[in-house]
Amino acid sequence: MKTIPSVKGTRDFYPEQMRVRSWLYRTMGRVSTLFGYEEYDGPFLEYMQLYAAKSGEELVKEQAFVFQDRGGEWITLRPELTPSLARMVAQKQRQLTYPLRWWSFGPMWRYERPQKGRSREFFQWNIDLIGANSPEADAELVAIGAVFLREVGLEPSEVQILVNNRRLVDAQLEMLGIPGEQRPAVLRLIDRRDKMSPQAWEAYALETVGLEQTQFAGVRVMLENAALWEQSEELVRLFKALEALGVGEYVRYAPEIVRGLDYYTGTVFEARDADGEFRAILGGGRYDNLVAAVGGTPLAGVGFAMGDMVITLVLQKFGRIPSAEELAPAPVLVTVFDAETQYESMAVATELRAAGIPTALYPEVAKLGKQLKHASRIGAPAAVIIGPDEAAAGVVTIKDLVHRTQQTVSRQDLPAILRTLRPENPA
Amino acid sequence: MKTIPSVKGTRDFYPEQMRVRSWLYRTMGRVSTLFGYEEYDGPFLEYMQLYAAKSGEELVKEQAFVFQDRGGEWITLRPELTPSLARMVAQKQRQLTYPLRWWSFGPMWRYERPQKGRSREFFQWNIDLIGANSPEADAELVAIGAVFLREVGLEPSEVQILVNNRRLVDAQLEMLGIPGEQRPAVLRLIDRRDKMSPQAWEAYALETVGLEQTQFAGVRVMLENAALWEQSEELVRLFKALEALGVGEYVRYAPEIVRGLDYYTGTVFEARDADGEFRAILGGGRYDNLVAAVGGTPLAGVGFAMGDMVITLVLQKFGRIPSAEELAPAPVLVTVFDAETQYESMAVATELRAAGIPTALYPEVAKLGKQLKHASRIGAPAAVIIGPDEAAAGVVTIKDLVHRTQQTVSRQDLPAILRTLRPENPA
Repeated sequence: MKTIPSVKGTRDFYPEQMRVRSWLYRTMGRVSTLFGYEEYDGPFLEYMQLYAAKSGEELVKEQAFVFQDRGGEWITLRPELTPSLARMVAQKQRQLTYPLRWWSFGPMWRYERPQKGRSREFFQWNIDLIGANSPEADAELVAIGAVFLREVGLEPSEVQILVNNRRLVDAQLEMLGIPGEQRPAVLRLIDRRDKMSPQAWEAYALETVGLEQTQFAGVRVMLENAALWEQSEELVRLFKALEALGVGEYVRYAPEIVRGLDYYTGTVFEARDADGEFRAILGGGRYDNLVAAVGGTPLAGVGFAMGDMVITLVLQKFGRIPSAEELAPAPVLVTVFDAETQYESMAVATELRAAGIPTALYPEVAKLGKQLKHASRIGAPAAVIIGPDEAAAGVVTIKDLVHRTQQTVSRQDLPAILRTLRPENPA
Repeated sequence: MKTIPSVKGTRDFYPEQMRVRSWLYRTMGRVSTLFGYEEYDGPFLEYMQLYAAKSGEELVKEQAFVFQDRGGEWITLRPELTPSLARMVAQKQRQLTYPLRWWSFGPMWRYERPQKGRSREFFQWNIDLIGANSPEADAELVAIGAVFLREVGLEPSEVQILVNNRRLVDAQLEMLGIPGEQRPAVLRLIDRRDKMSPQAWEAYALETVGLEQTQFAGVRVMLENAALWEQSEELVRLFKALEALGVGEYVRYAPEIVRGLDYYTGTVFEARDADGEFRAILGGGRYDNLVAAVGGTPLAGVGFAMGDMVITLVLQKFGRIPSAEELAPAPVLVTVFDAETQYESMAVATELRAAGIPTALYPEVAKLGKQLKHASRIGAPAAVIIGPDEAAAGVVTIKDLVHRTQQTVSRQDLPAILRTLRPENPA
C-alpha cells in the first residue's frame, strides 16, 4: 500500500520543525506582551467579499484558496489577517478601548508557486496599534520589529529595518510634476527596481509607466538621496523616537522602500537581511483607514506582518536557531524494572511531575539495556532506576547520561538533584 | 456601508476569548511536556483520500469541508488529526524512536450544524503514545487527561474519566452468542442508549439491530454490572496503574462507554461532567494499527483528543476560568507629558521592558487625565509620569491605580517597585 502524499505547498511539522515554530511564536508573544499588546485571532475561513472589497474578486480568486460552501457562498482560506482585524474592530468599534494594541500568530494560505521561503500554507505574526496617529506610534511598531530581531539573536550588521514615508515620496513626485493618477504606477516602478536590469527598468519607466526623461532622472536622484528623510518632519521624529527606544542601530532610511499596497499612507518599512539574499523578513506601515472596506468610522493605525519562512531561512543562514536541547529539553526517563516494582516507578514519576520535572515513564516491562538506550535516543539527561532493593530501601539510582556517572539517592532528594541535571523548559 | 459578516460556525477571538484559548493551549502543553511528550503539527490541508481511506469518500464529503484544487484534486480542511499523524509516522517509520510521545493543538473543521459546544471551526488537543502496547501505556494517557482536568481546577466530583475495554465488551457479546458481524451494530446500540427513550432503544435493539430478547437482556445486564471490569486483566492492571499515577479518584469503570469508531481495539475512555449536561470532554483509546490506511508496518498506540468547546462550557459552568488579570496581566502605562519629555518616557519604557516588565507607552502627546483614564480602562496596575521636573531630577512618579497611592522614585528603583504591583505573566 502506498503512502498518501501531503498537499503541495503544505508542511509537516515533526517535533524538530515544530520546536522552531513554537520558539518563534513564543518570542513574538513575549515581545508583543512586553510592549503591552494583547493576543487575538480571527477565523481561518472568511467570506470572499471581505477580501474582494480590498483587492477585487478576480485577484482573490487567483491568489487565494477559495471554494463555494453548500449554500453557494464563496469562502476563502484567509490569505492575510488585516481584513479579519478590520471586520472585528468594525463590529465592536464603540466598545473597544483606543489606542488598541493587538497581536496574533497563525496560519494563512496563498495559492502561489512553492519556492524557497514561500509555501501555500504558512504562519504569520500580525501586530497593530490602532487609533493613534503619530510618528511616535509608528516608531513603536518599528521598535517591536527590531526588538524581535535582537531577541532571536540577529545583529544590526545582519538585518536592518528600512524605513520610508509615503507622504515624502508623494511630495517628491509632486515636485517632479507627476500627477496623482500616475503615482501608483511609479510606486510599482520603484518597487521593481531590484527585480529588473537597469536597462529593462528604464524602458519600463519610460514606456510602460510613461515618465518623461526629466521625471525619470528625478526619480533616480530621489532613490540615491540618503539624506532626503531630513525633509520629512515625520521621519525626523520617527528616527528620534527610535533612538530613545534603543533600536536606532537596527533602522535606517531607505528611499527605495515604498511597499506596493495602496493601503499605506505614511510611514512604510520592511526588514531585510544585509546581504539582500532573501525577500523581506517583515513589512508594514501606517494606514489611514483600517475599516474603510468593511463599514465603520475611519480609524487610523500602524502595523506589520512577519511570515515564519523567510525569518527561519535568515536564522538558519546565521546559525541562530537554538539547539533542540535549548528549545525543548528532553524529559528524564524513569525505567521500569519488573512487573512488581513498576508501580514504584509510576509513583516516582508522579512525584517528579508534581515537582515540575518533565518525566517519561517507560510504558512496559523491558530489558533495562533497551530502556537506557531509549533514554539516550530521546536525549534524556538522566535515567532513574528502581529495582527491588531500591524500592525496599526507599531510594532510587540515577544514571547521569551526560556525565556518565551513577548515584543512589533518597526519593525525597531526587527532584532537587534532577533539576541540576536538566535545563528548565523555555518560557 | 454594511459590515461583512463572519462565516457561520467560525468564531472571532477578541482578546477576552483568546486569553482562554491560550490558557487551555498553555495548560495542555505543560501537562503534555510533564509526561515527556513532544509537540508536532500536521498540515491543515490534506488530500481527501487520506480521510476517505478511514471513513469512506461519501462520509468525508458530507462531514468535512472539501473542495477541488486547480488540478481537480479533492482537498480537505482537516476534520481530525489522526490521519495526518498516521501519514507522518508512516513517512518516517524507520527513523522515529519508539515509544513515540507526540502532542498537538490546532484548528480542525467539520461541516456540522453549529450548536452549543460545537462549531464548524474548532481547536483540538491530540496526544498519542505510539509503539507501546500495555495497559500501563493506556493508563498514562488516561492519567494525562486526569492531570489536565485537575490542572484547570476541576474536581473529581465534577468530572470523571469513564473507562471500558473493547475486548471485554467483545467477550461478553461472544458469550451472549452475538456473532462478530453483528457486534458493530451492538456497539452503536450501546452508544445510543442515553440519546433515546428506553422504549425506542429497546425497539431499536430488537428490530433494527436484530437482537434476540435474551441477548438484549444480556446486554442490559452487562451495562448495569459495575464489577465487570474485574474480569478483564487489562482493566485490573489499568486501574492499578492509575492509582500509582495518583489519579484514581478521577477515573471509574463505565460499561456503557464503547466509543463509536471501529478503530479502537482495547481500552476506550471519555471524560464527562458528573451531571451529564454536556457531550464528552475528551475521548480516546487504544488502536492496533495507526498506519493501516496509509501504508507502513502495523503500529499500535493509544491516544485521545479534546476539543476546546466542551471543556470551556464545563469550566464556565463551574466558574473555573481564571480572571483576565490572572490570564494576561495588563501592562504598566508610561504616560507622555509633552513633546520634549516624551523621549524620557520612551527611555523609561525601554528600561522597563529590558527588565522584563510589560509596558505600554502612550503613543502621542495628550492630556494627562485622558492618559490616566486609558490606563484604568486597560487595567494597568500603575501609570508612570515623567514631567519636566522629574526628567531633570532623574526620578519618576508612580500612580498605583490599584491602591490609589502615588510616590516619586528614582529611575533605577522603578522596575523593582513595579514588579511588586504587577503579577507575573503566566508560563
